[in-house]
Amino acid sequence: MIILFGVFIRYNEESDPHWSEYRRAKNISSDIENDFYFRYPSFQDVHVMIFVGFGFLMTFLKRYSFGAVGFNFLIAAFGLQWALLMQGWFHSLDYTDGKIKIGIENLINADFCVAGCLIAYGAVLGKVSPVQLMVLTLFGITLFAVEEYIILDLIHARDAGGSMVIHTFGGYYGLSISWMLYRPNLDQSSHLQGSVYHSDVFAMIGTLFLWMFWPSFNSAVTDHGDGQHRAVINTYLALASTVLTTVAISSLFQKHGKLDMVHIQNSTLAGGVAVGTAAEFMLMPYGSLIVGFCCGIISTLGYIYLTPFMEKYLKIQDTCGIHNLHAMPGVIGGVVGAITAAAASESVYGTEGLINTFDFEGDFKNVAPRRQGGLQAAGLCVAICFGVGGGIIVGCILRLPIWGDPADDNCFNDEPYWELPDDEESIPPILQYNNHTHNKDIVESNFTVEQNSR
Amino acid sequence: MIILFGVFIRYNEESDPHWSEYRRAKNISSDIENDFYFRYPSFQDVHVMIFVGFGFLMTFLKRYSFGAVGFNFLIAAFGLQWALLMQGWFHSLDYTDGKIKIGIENLINADFCVAGCLIAYGAVLGKVSPVQLMVLTLFGITLFAVEEYIILDLIHARDAGGSMVIHTFGGYYGLSISWMLYRPNLDQSSHLQGSVYHSDVFAMIGTLFLWMFWPSFNSAVTDHGDGQHRAVINTYLALASTVLTTVAISSLFQKHGKLDMVHIQNSTLAGGVAVGTAAEFMLMPYGSLIVGFCCGIISTLGYIYLTPFMEKYLKIQDTCGIHNLHAMPGVIGGVVGAITAAAASESVYGTEGLINTFDFEGDFKNVAPRRQGGLQAAGLCVAICFGVGGGIIVGCILRLPIWGDPADDNCFNDEPYWELPDDEESIPPILQYNNHTHNKDIVESNFTVEQNSR
Amino acid sequence: MIILFGVFIRYNEESDPHWSEYRRAKNISSDIENDFYFRYPSFQDVHVMIFVGFGFLMTFLKRYSFGAVGFNFLIAAFGLQWALLMQGWFHSLDYTDGKIKIGIENLINADFCVAGCLIAYGAVLGKVSPVQLMVLTLFGITLFAVEEYIILDLIHARDAGGSMVIHTFGGYYGLSISWMLYRPNLDQSSHLQGSVYHSDVFAMIGTLFLWMFWPSFNSAVTDHGDGQHRAVINTYLALASTVLTTVAISSLFQKHGKLDMVHIQNSTLAGGVAVGTAAEFMLMPYGSLIVGFCCGIISTLGYIYLTPFMEKYLKIQDTCGIHNLHAMPGVIGGVVGAITAAAASESVYGTEGLINTFDFEGDFKNVAPRRQGGLQAAGLCVAICFGVGGGIIVGCILRLPIWGDPADDNCFNDEPYWELPDDEESIPPILQYNNHTHNKDIVESNFTVEQNSR
Repeated sequence: MIILFGVFIRYNEESDPHWSEYRRAKNISSDIENDFYFRYPSFQDVHVMIFVGFGFLMTFLKRYSFGAVGFNFLIAAFGLQWALLMQGWFHSLDYTDGKIKIGIENLINADFCVAGCLIAYGAVLGKVSPVQLMVLTLFGITLFAVEEYIILDLIHARDAGGSMVIHTFGGYYGLSISWMLYRPNLDQSSHLQGSVYHSDVFAMIGTLFLWMFWPSFNSAVTDHGDGQHRAVINTYLALASTVLTTVAISSLFQKHGKLDMVHIQNSTLAGGVAVGTAAEFMLMPYGSLIVGFCCGIISTLGYIYLTPFMEKYLKIQDTCGIHNLHAMPGVIGGVVGAITAAAASESVYGTEGLINTFDFEGDFKNVAPRRQGGLQAAGLCVAICFGVGGGIIVGCILRLPIWGDPADDNCFNDEPYWELPDDEESIPPILQYNNHTHNKDIVESNFTVEQNSR
Repeated sequence: MIILFGVFIRYNEESDPHWSEYRRAKNISSDIENDFYFRYPSFQDVHVMIFVGFGFLMTFLKRYSFGAVGFNFLIAAFGLQWALLMQGWFHSLDYTDGKIKIGIENLINADFCVAGCLIAYGAVLGKVSPVQLMVLTLFGITLFAVEEYIILDLIHARDAGGSMVIHTFGGYYGLSISWMLYRPNLDQSSHLQGSVYHSDVFAMIGTLFLWMFWPSFNSAVTDHGDGQHRAVINTYLALASTVLTTVAISSLFQKHGKLDMVHIQNSTLAGGVAVGTAAEFMLMPYGSLIVGFCCGIISTLGYIYLTPFMEKYLKIQDTCGIHNLHAMPGVIGGVVGAITAAAASESVYGTEGLINTFDFEGDFKNVAPRRQGGLQAAGLCVAICFGVGGGIIVGCILRLPIWGDPADDNCFNDEPYWELPDDEESIPPILQYNNHTHNKDIVESNFTVEQNSR
Repeated sequence: MIILFGVFIRYNEESDPHWSEYRRAKNISSDIENDFYFRYPSFQDVHVMIFVGFGFLMTFLKRYSFGAVGFNFLIAAFGLQWALLMQGWFHSLDYTDGKIKIGIENLINADFCVAGCLIAYGAVLGKVSPVQLMVLTLFGITLFAVEEYIILDLIHARDAGGSMVIHTFGGYYGLSISWMLYRPNLDQSSHLQGSVYHSDVFAMIGTLFLWMFWPSFNSAVTDHGDGQHRAVINTYLALASTVLTTVAISSLFQKHGKLDMVHIQNSTLAGGVAVGTAAEFMLMPYGSLIVGFCCGIISTLGYIYLTPFMEKYLKIQDTCGIHNLHAMPGVIGGVVGAITAAAASESVYGTEGLINTFDFEGDFKNVAPRRQGGLQAAGLCVAICFGVGGGIIVGCILRLPIWGDPADDNCFNDEPYWELPDDEESIPPILQYNNHTHNKDIVESNFTVEQNSR
């Protein structure tokens, strides 16, 4: 990695000490117009989403919090280095000297690229080894860069918040891998596949940071000025609307009208996913509310009906329910984006607005909005194909018996990969006790162990 | 809600694709002068305060963390949509076409508006149902918008950080509702009205995010340039000073000189409340320290003496002690603001500074600072009246027996409203045991239940 | 404090209401060029690192979370007031009227100054009283301001991210104090010197916020434009690289290849420390990766071999391992900074770049890069001397028996300083039971106590 960076990666003109000369040459009046000041606050928010948001969202399992946060940290830090290289080769290569010139926008895109793999991690959470995760990330980043190049640069679709390139791809990539790694005897670990009170509160940290900073996610790489401004407003409204429908549906479909923490933790975020592609378009505030409204319903019902169905009949074990949180809303987002783009008109956007928003320039200046709608739909198909196809291939690789994956009765457990503090080592005998060894002496000795370990 | 948004809400010129044409027409030199770049970082900080700050601050109860974070999330997401409409009608309505034009400043104001209701939630935490909370929020937002319109637009008081419009109003609104909903037999739930070790640590997450981002709260909607800069410095200093006095008073007045986590979690924030109105004025750094110093004392003593007194004699049960954290410091903030405004002089502010800071323009250009001081005081009275009056009316509505509020012995308990993980379902028998059923067999069976659920 | 602020501290021209006049006089075209908009997002990130990052990083102890977060809060809030004064006298004193003019950059520097003392707190965590901490902070801030004045203003070394002035100084200051306060019988508290499952997850909150916002830390006070941009890229890459080596080394050197949470929590941050001085220089992306790579190895091996060695043979008890996280990487950062500065050339930086980056102006314009390298090395020596010397002196003061420090068997325990919730008061009898009182009746009564307290 160091060698590759040494050969290929350099600072771009905005992060190079020649900036002040460049600035004068380009007639830029002030340091504040460095792209850094347009994008850095959004970048930091995205960074928080990747590391705290995704990391803590997955801590809900009672005994896999270390793995959730720790492996998330590991693969994100690995992935962003690899993403800078892969995305650089495809997007930022300067052909005059064969170098990749990086600036703040590349860092944001690397974080986006990593997000795709973290989504996939959600499907296989607790069932794979860290080595498998590294392999999943290595191939995932590579596929992502190719797919993004096809969708954004060849097809010329627009996808500011990545409903298609990030969420649809990441979702189906993870689901396909999980399908290939199906474990028929996973119920041996079922006593660990649940939450405890405080692990659910930890997961809410992840949920809230994702929810709050999603407007930054969708606006981070949109156009300066009105583009970023509009993307924030649309995402904010879609998310607010999703929360209400999620709570309503969760309460309606549960027995006794109680709320389920799983829905609150996950489905409330679906609106941000679904508004991703269209966030920079003129979706209008009520359009954002409608998107959020629908996604809250679909995502929550997905958790109630679809996830058990998929596990039972399609043999896809989806630990975090990424199909409901990322894959389905991502597809909805792609469709909404295509419709909104196809409906674009000069009266709504103005001539300059059409150019700024859709890059209708050069060869593409005469592309009608309708054609743009078609391109968006094509982009969505490419994302699904790459997700499913790539996931099956990588899943095959991960089935090789060389990666040290955990046994069926040791899934959702930090114990194989982490040095646990003493209070946790009292667990195995208690589990043994759970296995119906009703013996009072053992109860008391367990109790002694537990007391000792406090 | 979708229909109302469809009819009324549109993007403003800074978030509309015609921005680049507008910019050229107005001779604005760069995209970076879009209001978005002045306010977005502060907006995100305020957003964190609303969802993580207020949400986690209330997780201190041992068995009401889901309700604290989850219902906070729900009512905030609902409230901000309603606030965009209500505040839009009063403040941002474009009379040429009857539409509300929204931009980043409207999003910040909607978050502010929601803050008022979340403060009120603090007083009734654990004693109301989610439906009651929605009603409380619906009326609270409406009252807030009216009160804000009277104080800021009719009276022309200034209130950058909302000491009066947010904290004083929200505090007295919540206290009045709590007074109307007085429960004489609340001690039946007293075993749940306390914290455990880890729930106090969770609450510290809320405290710290509120504390750190309060400078953004007070500066988010102040004037560009020196106004935002000065508001940050004043708030930062007032908060730092409050921490020291809170720790000192807490240690002095507790037995054995021990610190009480309740004070550290709450009273340390009082300085930020009290400096809200005057943050953009020339309060001077030492003035901020004095305000913080006094508030730390008053707020901590309030927790030690006033809250028990209010519960016993005034029949106001204030779960989070919002009287000490929001109501009293808010009143102090209004008074400090009135004094600082009355003391404004051209020698300190400069002619332009007076115009920028106090909007002494048009009809009001000749208003002497002394009159501005009077207006500030009038604004404070309006805020208190709206808080107390509105709270009593809404409290009456909430006393109707149709809202599904929890029984006296089931307060401060997530169990009626949430699907709890298994480890919590072992609680009811243990509570039963707490109720003096000293029977060894039951103890052992409880123990078995608990072990099983881990 | 209030009096000192009243006498000395005023707003600077960018936070004063005369800003709009000043702006016109200086021909600054827009409010957005107020330094506030260059630095405020970074400031808030640094603020989060100080209060949430350092605070929660130290919550890993099973029974010292209140002390970690609470005392961190206390001394940071105290320290930043004192730092504004001390740094103001040395750096920002306006000799025309004898006042200190403060703006956003002073707030950032005050936070930096506090960071030095919080690092020192890491070494003595759990073994000192709050009064001792206040004394440690008072002297630490004072020493810091003098040392920073010598390094930055007299020697004219550059230290954007504070590898030398903050981390090296803070690290050796804390280690020297810990050496002076050596407790031979500390093993009486060894049952409390460990973590539990959830306390480790809390600590990960601190780790992640430090890790994510470190780019802001290193770029907060660098030059506008390319300087901030480059510092962010370098820090981001160094940190990403450190995570990978930390995980690899932790897994290689532990039995069974398991990961140790202590390393993940701490060593992953070492790269950000080590890249601090050189972050604004042309370290090049691969250079950042190399620095991060080396630091991950050294820091993790330090936790495995050096910390036990120091405790056993050098009588330095380093609770958080700050030697591995701050002191060693800080020294590495100083050396890297000296090398990078000495290698600076006009071909890489351009003439203006050299002036902007190294302030080669006035008397120093002809200073060759090689001489700058020597100055950097001299700065590093000054930082180490101040750290060790100051630590020994302050350690002597703290050994006086008047500060109320905890007994050897009561270290790492919140109980002496905090009102604990009931669930914790059941601990003493259980500990008593730990001390080998194997009596079944006591077991059962403990059990009863614990059940009652839930």
